[in-house]
Amino acid sequence: MSSNQLGDRVFCSINGRYGTLASLTSAPETRVFPLGENLSFEDGASIGIPYFTACRALILKAKAKKGERLLVHGASGGVGLAAVQMGRELGLHVVGTAGTDEGISLVKATGAHEVFNHRDPKYLKNLGTEKFDIILEMLANVNLDKDLTLMNPRGRTIVVGSRGPTQINPRNLMMSESSVTGVALGTSTEEEWAELAAHVVAGTESGWVKPPVHKVYSLEEASQAHHDIIHSKGAQGNLVVRVTE
Amino acid sequence: MSSNQLGDRVFCSINGRYGTLASLTSAPETRVFPLGENLSFEDGASIGIPYFTACRALILKAKAKKGERLLVHGASGGVGLAAVQMGRELGLHVVGTAGTDEGISLVKATGAHEVFNHRDPKYLKNLGTEKFDIILEMLANVNLDKDLTLMNPRGRTIVVGSRGPTQINPRNLMMSESSVTGVALGTSTEEEWAELAAHVVAGTESGWVKPPVHKVYSLEEASQAHHDIIHSKGAQGNLVVRVTE
Repeated sequence: MSSNQLGDRVFCSINGRYGTLASLTSAPETRVFPLGENLSFEDGASIGIPYFTACRALILKAKAKKGERLLVHGASGGVGLAAVQMGRELGLHVVGTAGTDEGISLVKATGAHEVFNHRDPKYLKNLGTEKFDIILEMLANVNLDKDLTLMNPRGRTIVVGSRGPTQINPRNLMMSESSVTGVALGTSTEEEWAELAAHVVAGTESGWVKPPVHKVYSLEEASQAHHDIIHSKGAQGNLVVRVTE
Repeated sequence: MSSNQLGDRVFCSINGRYGTLASLTSAPETRVFPLGENLSFEDGASIGIPYFTACRALILKAKAKKGERLLVHGASGGVGLAAVQMGRELGLHVVGTAGTDEGISLVKATGAHEVFNHRDPKYLKNLGTEKFDIILEMLANVNLDKDLTLMNPRGRTIVVGSRGPTQINPRNLMMSESSVTGVALGTSTEEEWAELAAHVVAGTESGWVKPPVHKVYSLEEASQAHHDIIHSKGAQGNLVVRVTE
């Protein structure tokens, strides 16, 4: 490391090639960033993937423009909440969805202008008649067909997560000339990593990057953490495993 | 009209608000273009929608770059053949598919580097292992799920036609960060019409715009023409109705 000194508090954004449950790790200098005094190491563990992914989706893929309407479809998880904070910072009108009362409260507290329960059978009606320029989709296999009907002309749905196949009607992309695009943080070029880092590190300094940590586990509880994230009945921010005291 | 004079041979690109079976029509000046002496009126009738749509799809939506690999999925119809000619003009490697021997011959004769029969159960294998940067999809309800597996990183599938819902696996968009975008010529702005016209009219002058006319019907045969296009067992270019002798 050159810009960082031995003993500096840092966070990093690296693909988990060897997993992240380690007390020591190595990372290229370009993926290591200063962790401000106002952020804990648990916060730091919640920045690398969620904020960089939200940034890649909103800025590099959707090319978000101030004043546009953003729907974060599944907003109470790590990437979703980061997207809500970043959407506000970019001057978007941010609408979120979550599946539990706790999730809805958290998405509201995180700054969404409006939040709806996507488990309410009437939630599409509740979303109103005004459509969206950008949709960040966390569970495409459940929501994608609906997303295609929720986009403004030239709307962009960015697929952040999907757990299987789904049925859609491609005709709904045609008259609106809207699009569906996948996002994968790991495909970033070095230039893109630098651009993402510039946005996120600036956010840690100005203060809008506030990672929502839901629960901290000890290393012994790591398998429970994995169980909880897969079987979650509704996300409420990041789950963090603390490796050393 | 100002740039065109009374009696000039012209073609036009207009949305068929009142249909196109008429001996007289009106069109805004910005949608009327000179028809070179080397082109017949039947040719002219086959330029407005197919070439402008192919141009909108390839240049404005897919942002085609020289040397990219293009798959025209369903290449033997009016838009498909226009896309093959335009793809060659843009310096793309053009692969087409068609469903009949006649269609395949026509797509080859029109300039595609390679042509495959999409009714051959092994055609995906025949396409080889090299993927595509751009796919122009004429029948998304049949092919879209396959298209998602045929794209290079940051590949773009442009949906030109679809006749119903279909199942896809959104995960295939994620690692490649590829996209699916709809196209609708009628949504073009005036600036875009001008840009499309510049490309297509230049093509009528330099000669690469050669509309493939499959059959010419009399006005009395118009209903047969509609029947034939809907029940076609495999397109072979444009069907034209001649309104006046």
